[in-house]
Amino acid sequence: MTAQRHFDEELSTLKERLLTMASLVESMIFKAVKSLTEREEPLIQEVNKDEEKVNLLEIEIDERCLKLLALHQPMATDLRFITSAMKINSELERIGDMAVNITQCVEVLIKQPQLKPYIDLPRMADLTQKMVKDSLDAFIKNDADLARSVLRSDDQVDGLKDQIFRELLTFMMSDHSTISRALELILVSRHLERIGDHATNIAEDVIYLVQGKDIRHRIEEKRVREK
Amino acid sequence: MTAQRHFDEELSTLKERLLTMASLVESMIFKAVKSLTEREEPLIQEVNKDEEKVNLLEIEIDERCLKLLALHQPMATDLRFITSAMKINSELERIGDMAVNITQCVEVLIKQPQLKPYIDLPRMADLTQKMVKDSLDAFIKNDADLARSVLRSDDQVDGLKDQIFRELLTFMMSDHSTISRALELILVSRHLERIGDHATNIAEDVIYLVQGKDIRHRIEEKRVREK
Repeated sequence: MTAQRHFDEELSTLKERLLTMASLVESMIFKAVKSLTEREEPLIQEVNKDEEKVNLLEIEIDERCLKLLALHQPMATDLRFITSAMKINSELERIGDMAVNITQCVEVLIKQPQLKPYIDLPRMADLTQKMVKDSLDAFIKNDADLARSVLRSDDQVDGLKDQIFRELLTFMMSDHSTISRALELILVSRHLERIGDHATNIAEDVIYLVQGKDIRHRIEEKRVREK
Repeated sequence: MTAQRHFDEELSTLKERLLTMASLVESMIFKAVKSLTEREEPLIQEVNKDEEKVNLLEIEIDERCLKLLALHQPMATDLRFITSAMKINSELERIGDMAVNITQCVEVLIKQPQLKPYIDLPRMADLTQKMVKDSLDAFIKNDADLARSVLRSDDQVDGLKDQIFRELLTFMMSDHSTISRALELILVSRHLERIGDHATNIAEDVIYLVQGKDIRHRIEEKRVREK
């Protein structure tokens, strides 16, 4: 096998492993929020088991990237692709951590009566799962437009987070007994927000990769101005 | 100049720039918390200006790393050092973001009377600043023991965060009018906690780098067991 062909095969395995990791963390977000809405404790254990798999995958992917860099000494585009893969790998692992953090809130919440019907949290969860999926697809397909759609979804996620915050603040203000549950729900929304942030980091890396210039901070500056 | 000497010089510039970035984000943490304790609005603007510098530094350091990888095609230790530098660069930038997030809470807080004397938040800020400094020093000096001390500090930071949470919960429960201020203070403590997490990520990378094996998830697993 030629060195080039070997490199291409290794690169395609790397992509496949990243997609596997992305699906796994997506399902963790789904299970974590379902454990809340359906009050299903076994799902909490599943998320914890999934996290172990994510941790092993992270190490494996990191090693694959280092091997690709060391053995094939890629240039330009391939080099950027592999260093981006290393960053994306970290982001995915942290998304898994956030799903675990959500289940820690759920453990507290399902011991008490449900405070209110959950509408916005599942919507946030759906949005963030899609952001994870789309940001990874954008990376694999080199698709800057898809990556940009992730940035737009992040604005929606932030909007929902603010809405949840205001709503729960009203609950707390009008009824003492809701404070500790409302706080846990606010934390769940913050963890989902952070998942959105991690997916956004991935999407910004993709746009950087495709356009070869750094949009990360231009976007940030724009956001700061808009606030 | 030989290629090796050129590489060594580039590497030492890279280290120096990372240290510059670390000092900058440390000072941002300091200013953000001081803007709260001293109710000094101009410090908020300073932190926002510092963030622009951090963003430029992040791009510069990222480019330096890519150039080192592309032009010198380093092997083994140097390769791991440079890919770690890229990760650490992202962590530092996010620490800067957290300092900005703190100032957003401060903007709300200083418009209202101070809820209580601030004791634990400045302690958290001191601890996290030291964690940032030590994790970077550990990286530059290849010092796994110093990196391990950062992990221990993180347990202290988490302890303070829990303490602050319990205290503010009591405030909210006993007096409605404190709820919105207490919530903002809880958020400040969460941002500081995340700064501690980012410094911990750096420290774990350093231990990995020094020991050549992945302790990241062993540490995590230990933590999960202890919980």
